[in-house]
Amino acid sequence: MAEPTPEQVVDAPSGPSKSELKKRAKAAEKEKKAAEKAAKQQELAMQKAAAEEDFATEFYGPLPLNQSQSRPRRQYAQISTFSSRDGETVLFRARVQTSRAQGNKMVFLNLRQRTDSVQALVTVTPEKISKQMVKWTAGLTDESIVLVEGVVKKTPEIIKSASVGDVEVHLSQIHLVAGLDTRLPFSLDDASRGDAEVEAAETQFNKVLLDTRLNNRVLDLRTQTNQAVFKLQAAVGDLFREHLSAKGFIEIHSPKLQGAATESGASVFKVSYFKGSAFLAQSPQLAKQMAIAADFERVYEIGPVFRAEDSNTHRHMTEFMGLDLEMTIEEHYHEVLELLDGLFLSIFKGLREKYKKEIDVVGKQFPAEEFKWREGPEGTLKLTFKEAVELLVEDGVSRDVLDDFSTENEKRLGRIVKAKYDTDYYIIDKFPMALRPFYTMADPDDPLLSNSYDFFMRGEEILSGAQRIHEPNLLAEKMRSKGVDPESMKGYIDGFRLGCAPHGGGGIGLERVLMLFLKLNNIRRASLFPRDPKRLEP
Amino acid sequence: MAEPTPEQVVDAPSGPSKSELKKRAKAAEKEKKAAEKAAKQQELAMQKAAAEEDFATEFYGPLPLNQSQSRPRRQYAQISTFSSRDGETVLFRARVQTSRAQGNKMVFLNLRQRTDSVQALVTVTPEKISKQMVKWTAGLTDESIVLVEGVVKKTPEIIKSASVGDVEVHLSQIHLVAGLDTRLPFSLDDASRGDAEVEAAETQFNKVLLDTRLNNRVLDLRTQTNQAVFKLQAAVGDLFREHLSAKGFIEIHSPKLQGAATESGASVFKVSYFKGSAFLAQSPQLAKQMAIAADFERVYEIGPVFRAEDSNTHRHMTEFMGLDLEMTIEEHYHEVLELLDGLFLSIFKGLREKYKKEIDVVGKQFPAEEFKWREGPEGTLKLTFKEAVELLVEDGVSRDVLDDFSTENEKRLGRIVKAKYDTDYYIIDKFPMALRPFYTMADPDDPLLSNSYDFFMRGEEILSGAQRIHEPNLLAEKMRSKGVDPESMKGYIDGFRLGCAPHGGGGIGLERVLMLFLKLNNIRRASLFPRDPKRLEP
Repeated sequence: MAEPTPEQVVDAPSGPSKSELKKRAKAAEKEKKAAEKAAKQQELAMQKAAAEEDFATEFYGPLPLNQSQSRPRRQYAQISTFSSRDGETVLFRARVQTSRAQGNKMVFLNLRQRTDSVQALVTVTPEKISKQMVKWTAGLTDESIVLVEGVVKKTPEIIKSASVGDVEVHLSQIHLVAGLDTRLPFSLDDASRGDAEVEAAETQFNKVLLDTRLNNRVLDLRTQTNQAVFKLQAAVGDLFREHLSAKGFIEIHSPKLQGAATESGASVFKVSYFKGSAFLAQSPQLAKQMAIAADFERVYEIGPVFRAEDSNTHRHMTEFMGLDLEMTIEEHYHEVLELLDGLFLSIFKGLREKYKKEIDVVGKQFPAEEFKWREGPEGTLKLTFKEAVELLVEDGVSRDVLDDFSTENEKRLGRIVKAKYDTDYYIIDKFPMALRPFYTMADPDDPLLSNSYDFFMRGEEILSGAQRIHEPNLLAEKMRSKGVDPESMKGYIDGFRLGCAPHGGGGIGLERVLMLFLKLNNIRRASLFPRDPKRLEP
Repeated sequence: MAEPTPEQVVDAPSGPSKSELKKRAKAAEKEKKAAEKAAKQQELAMQKAAAEEDFATEFYGPLPLNQSQSRPRRQYAQISTFSSRDGETVLFRARVQTSRAQGNKMVFLNLRQRTDSVQALVTVTPEKISKQMVKWTAGLTDESIVLVEGVVKKTPEIIKSASVGDVEVHLSQIHLVAGLDTRLPFSLDDASRGDAEVEAAETQFNKVLLDTRLNNRVLDLRTQTNQAVFKLQAAVGDLFREHLSAKGFIEIHSPKLQGAATESGASVFKVSYFKGSAFLAQSPQLAKQMAIAADFERVYEIGPVFRAEDSNTHRHMTEFMGLDLEMTIEEHYHEVLELLDGLFLSIFKGLREKYKKEIDVVGKQFPAEEFKWREGPEGTLKLTFKEAVELLVEDGVSRDVLDDFSTENEKRLGRIVKAKYDTDYYIIDKFPMALRPFYTMADPDDPLLSNSYDFFMRGEEILSGAQRIHEPNLLAEKMRSKGVDPESMKGYIDGFRLGCAPHGGGGIGLERVLMLFLKLNNIRRASLFPRDPKRLEP
């Protein structure tokens, strides 16, 4: 603070006149007041600056790197609960899907948690929300993660861009938890549009191609559609287990590393195994049958299966999830077929009853006729292979090409069945022996037919199964007739030499079930990080 | 039938004397009677033979190969229910564990279904059970599968050789479903004895070595012990999922085929992938972190993990089941540690409460002190790495060797902890940064320590976990400092560049948990078909 200097006072008794002294005193007084004023202003400015600094720290800005420095145990809220929390102050963490500034006094944010989103806004408010805070918020990159606090308020009109659209959140604090260190390869809004919507609008929207999505799968998986798809994938697994546990099955885990290229050598991946080689199991077929020979009676396995087929179709991957089961038969292999049918019906029902929200979310991006199955007392449609052939012949397909069904004829059959029986789900039983693997049991009445079946959804195969041969000599004979040396599968065939009950089972492709139930049109969309002959990353 | 010939009659009026005629008539009469008698005997013999043939078909003998010829829908019973079915006639399928003839009129069978067995007997009974049937039954090979019918009867004394020992079944029918086409490499009785029992008896019993068991795993798995072990393995998985589902986790399936040898290149198996190479994932670490970057928030995976380590210890396999989880952190990584602790406690409790029978069955062959954990309000014992070092130093271990814990010192620590705190289960937190992988988050207060932890059962590690680095530049820096080129893991690090919430997790070895809970002493016993550097079969 500017006090009068010592000279000004000490000088007074000697020299100058009274008026001169008066003048000087006045000037000094003036100077003093100015100095005091300046000092006061400076103090105010400093106080203001200090206040704004605190304000910034408290109400907005980046958080320090979370290394678990403290644990105040504050409650984090879920957007999905906001509709019923009008007037409440909520703290929550979310992604910034989009931000939109309105002038320099207001920003609207679309904040997202998995399949839920809500509108939030930051408005300049005296003593509470500064222009700087609004500006900082408007500058947040899309897909940043923020921690916010605000008050939930009912909105007069539904906000269509948010999944929780009857409320918005008036933010009082916003902090950055994690920003972006790269440019977004596509926006989540673009990635969330259906093909139909994009095509209808022609140039207005960017179409995000499947390959671009898969190259940037972490981002692509954040769409509400994909969050729902993988919740449904987990649901199929849960429903599978739930049904089978109730039926006395136990889960097994069989090794994927095999000593020999079994089943069919052509489509097996070879692994360097120390000084020798191993092979990746193309199914748990052998192991689950060995578990039956080991008296487990009813087993299932959920695990990866590997197929070294150089096939890049919409429904093939080199690695996918097999839902496999095997069970002893008491009298007839239809015990297995009926159990599998019951299993599928419980999966379909479970999805429809417990996951309607997720199915609807997916349906917005992938519109599909609702998946239909026969629910009346007549039960699931079961055709024999021969009956299926007749349906195709009646429809104009030449009988000559129907020794086996091509993918095209399978789909055609799906359309015929849908038109005739109004179902997307059916079973074909009694396949010709020639089409099935060596371990398939023949029909007792016609050795050209077998006790085997496929299950179909929307005209595509999703399960293949059969009664297996449990008699070791018959099995060895069938192996030889198919060019397989029984000695090459000694561990397997020995299980039957030790006595094995009649049994059967089937293998389900998890991603296929998901793709066809939701009509995703490409199996890669049903796999978290899909693998095909051309893709091993990410 | 032998009638008198026409001559004998026609001759009468002419030649021979009366006495001669009388003589002849007498002889003829005698001959007739003898012929009649012979005819009668022959008829009886034929009737008897026919009756016995029917009898054989109906009451005993081999069944035709079950190719699902018919479906009479008879009810098959479970041995486990027999105690409460005194006087009932039951039909059931079972293995012949042993058969013992008593003279030629009676056979005792020990019949087995999984973890249950019952005594059955076949006794010669007029009009019902023939000597042949008893003989045929006595000739059945051990481990044959039979379909039997009989009456359940209470026994005056408990039959010790059977698990359901208060009843036996008096058989009226016995049929062979599947016989054996090989000699048994060992008997199930021998395979079911504990090492202690075998050693105490010295030469009386055959000890079945682990290698012999594993070479004949299908047979070995049939012991009641192994049936229980794998029921418990499935139970651990069920309890894991149940706990995590309730906490908002979803199951994911990540690919085992990887484009690059990630995490630590040395212990990864290489796969021929069409014209290039792939690698088997040594954990779902990268994928589950990418799922967090993709907003899944809380994920778990149950899947095979592959380790190309040429290690043949009691606790290492080249393929095992990983129970992995990853979750976002709100404030502090102890949120993860506490969740994992709650998970283990629910698994331990679930096993004890719902699977006592199976634990007891295993305990007969593998006697162990019951697994103990702290259940009081003080909660699970949590030590810091530093505190654990101090315990070892106090116990006489030189501080110089305690930069890391050897397997021996880990076990020693387990004994110290058990003696001091009476628990087989505890957590060590705050491992030195130098011991952890590049993605581990450092302690905010001491950069030489990390936000990481291991969980232990009976002195062996069963879980390793940590808070992970979610900031891409820090992650890249740590990679470089550990000699990993960030570009080689682009798909992974890109996930963090797109913004990722703070997170942590852990990976549990399923077979280790099972081995240590049950004290099986070798991890191979906890794996259905174990794989190690020397074993790829069966």
